[in-house]
Amino acid sequence: MTEAALRTFKLTVAYDGSEFAGWQVQPGKPTIQGKLQDAARQLAGSHVNVIGSGRTDAGVHALAQVASCELLWRDSTQRLLMALNAHLPDSIVVDQVDEAVPGFHAIRDAIGKRYRYQLQLGGLRDPFQSRFRWHLRTKLDLEAMQIAARRFLGRHDFRGFQNSGSDRKTTVREIRACEVFAQSNQWNDREHVAVEIEADGFLYNMVRSMVGTLVEVGRGKQAPAWVDSLLVAGERGLAGQTAPANGLMLLRVDYDPKCVVD
Amino acid sequence: MTEAALRTFKLTVAYDGSEFAGWQVQPGKPTIQGKLQDAARQLAGSHVNVIGSGRTDAGVHALAQVASCELLWRDSTQRLLMALNAHLPDSIVVDQVDEAVPGFHAIRDAIGKRYRYQLQLGGLRDPFQSRFRWHLRTKLDLEAMQIAARRFLGRHDFRGFQNSGSDRKTTVREIRACEVFAQSNQWNDREHVAVEIEADGFLYNMVRSMVGTLVEVGRGKQAPAWVDSLLVAGERGLAGQTAPANGLMLLRVDYDPKCVVD
Repeated sequence: MTEAALRTFKLTVAYDGSEFAGWQVQPGKPTIQGKLQDAARQLAGSHVNVIGSGRTDAGVHALAQVASCELLWRDSTQRLLMALNAHLPDSIVVDQVDEAVPGFHAIRDAIGKRYRYQLQLGGLRDPFQSRFRWHLRTKLDLEAMQIAARRFLGRHDFRGFQNSGSDRKTTVREIRACEVFAQSNQWNDREHVAVEIEADGFLYNMVRSMVGTLVEVGRGKQAPAWVDSLLVAGERGLAGQTAPANGLMLLRVDYDPKCVVD
Repeated sequence: MTEAALRTFKLTVAYDGSEFAGWQVQPGKPTIQGKLQDAARQLAGSHVNVIGSGRTDAGVHALAQVASCELLWRDSTQRLLMALNAHLPDSIVVDQVDEAVPGFHAIRDAIGKRYRYQLQLGGLRDPFQSRFRWHLRTKLDLEAMQIAARRFLGRHDFRGFQNSGSDRKTTVREIRACEVFAQSNQWNDREHVAVEIEADGFLYNMVRSMVGTLVEVGRGKQAPAWVDSLLVAGERGLAGQTAPANGLMLLRVDYDPKCVVD
C-alpha cells in the first residue's frame, strides 16, 4: 500500500488498570483510551478516535479489550502494532492489530464478552495480588456459589444487577457461562478463587453485582435460590454489593470473524 | 506475659519492591526497612531497629525476607503480626512472627538463602509482569544455560561476580542449587523462564551478575565452560551484565531452627 488511505483497525489491548481512571477519556486524568488516542495521534499527526468495546471502570484490568479506530496508515498492521506500543506506557500493550472491514465498530459489533473476577479467601493480604483480587476475610462455600452461578444461565432481565449510569435500550441479557472455581497458587498459601461470566453483553457494573451476590451465597447469608428471586424482582437494592473494581478483568470480546480482513 | 519485657522477634516479610528505594532506610525515600521501623515505632512508642537478612536493591522483591528486632511487647506473636500489618502499606506484609532467642540477628545468623530471577523471552511486553521479569527480546538456549548453571555448583571464589559496594571478609561462597527452568504461563502467550540460586550467602549483586552471565550463554555468545574461566579469573569486568533489579525475588532465608522459641 503506497498511498495513505483511511483504514479501519481492530486493536486487541491488554492493560493493568490499577493506575488509570478507567477506560474513558477524562480531562486531566490518565485513562486507557486517552493513552491509546495519544499514541495514535503521534502516528497520525491529528486526533484519532479510539472506540473501546465498553468502558472499564477505574482499577479494572483487561487481558484482551478490543478497540476500533480509523487511521491514515501506509504500512503493515505489524508495524502499526510496534509503533503504537512504542508510544504506550508499560501498563498498556497492544497485543494484536487486525485490519477491519470499513465501518467496523468495537461497541456496536460486539456479540459477546467474557469477564473474570478474582478473589482471595481469608489469609493475610498478598502484596503481589492486591491489584488483582478482592480480599475477603473469610472462606466461602464454593459449592453453594456454583449452584447459585448456574441459576444465572440463560436469558434474564438483569435490571436488578445494574448500577445507575447505564442507558441501555433493554436490560435483558443472555448468560452463556457462569463458573466459580478454585485457582492454583504455587506462589504462597493464599486461597485463590475466580468467577468467570460470559454473556452477549453486560449492563453497567453487572459482573460486579453478580459477584457480590454470589459472595453473599458463599457466606451462607442467602441460599442459591435467592438468585431466582432477584432476577424476578429486578430491584438493584436487593442484590449483593458491587464487588470492588480491582478484582475484575475483561478476558475477551467476541466478534463475527468476518469483521477482519485477511 | 503480663509485664512488658524486651523480647526478640523474627519477622518473615513479603513485599513488592517496585515502589521502594530498596530495603535500607534512606532519608526522604520510601524503603521497606523504613516502613517496618515506622510500623514498629507506632507499637513501641520509640525507635525500633529492624535488621534485614540483607539489603535488597530498589525494585527487588521478597517472598520471605527475614528481619530481626527487639521490642517491648506484652501480647502474642499473632497479635504483633496483626498490629504490624495494620501499619504497613498494601505492598508489604508480615507473613509470620516468631519469638526468637535473645541475641538472634537476621544477618549474622543466616545460614543460607534462595533467590529466584524471572525472565520473559521474546514476545511483546506484558503489562501484568513488567514489575517482576526482565524482558529479553530474543529466545534463549535453555539447555546451554542449564549446563552453565551446573558449573556454578560447589565452593568458589565469586569476586568476579560482585559489584562494588560489598565489604565482605571473604568472597568464597558455596552454591547449593543453580537451576534454569521454564515456568508455566496460562495467562497469555509470553514465554516465562526462571533461574533459582541457593547458597550459604551472596555477595552484592551476585545473583544478578550470575544471571547476566547465564543469559550470555543462552544467547550463544559464550559456551557453558565460560563460567569456569570466569570463576578462575575473578574479574568483574569479564562476566555478564548485572541483570535488572525487577526480575529478582528473595525466596527464602534459612536459619538454625533453634533460633526461634517454641
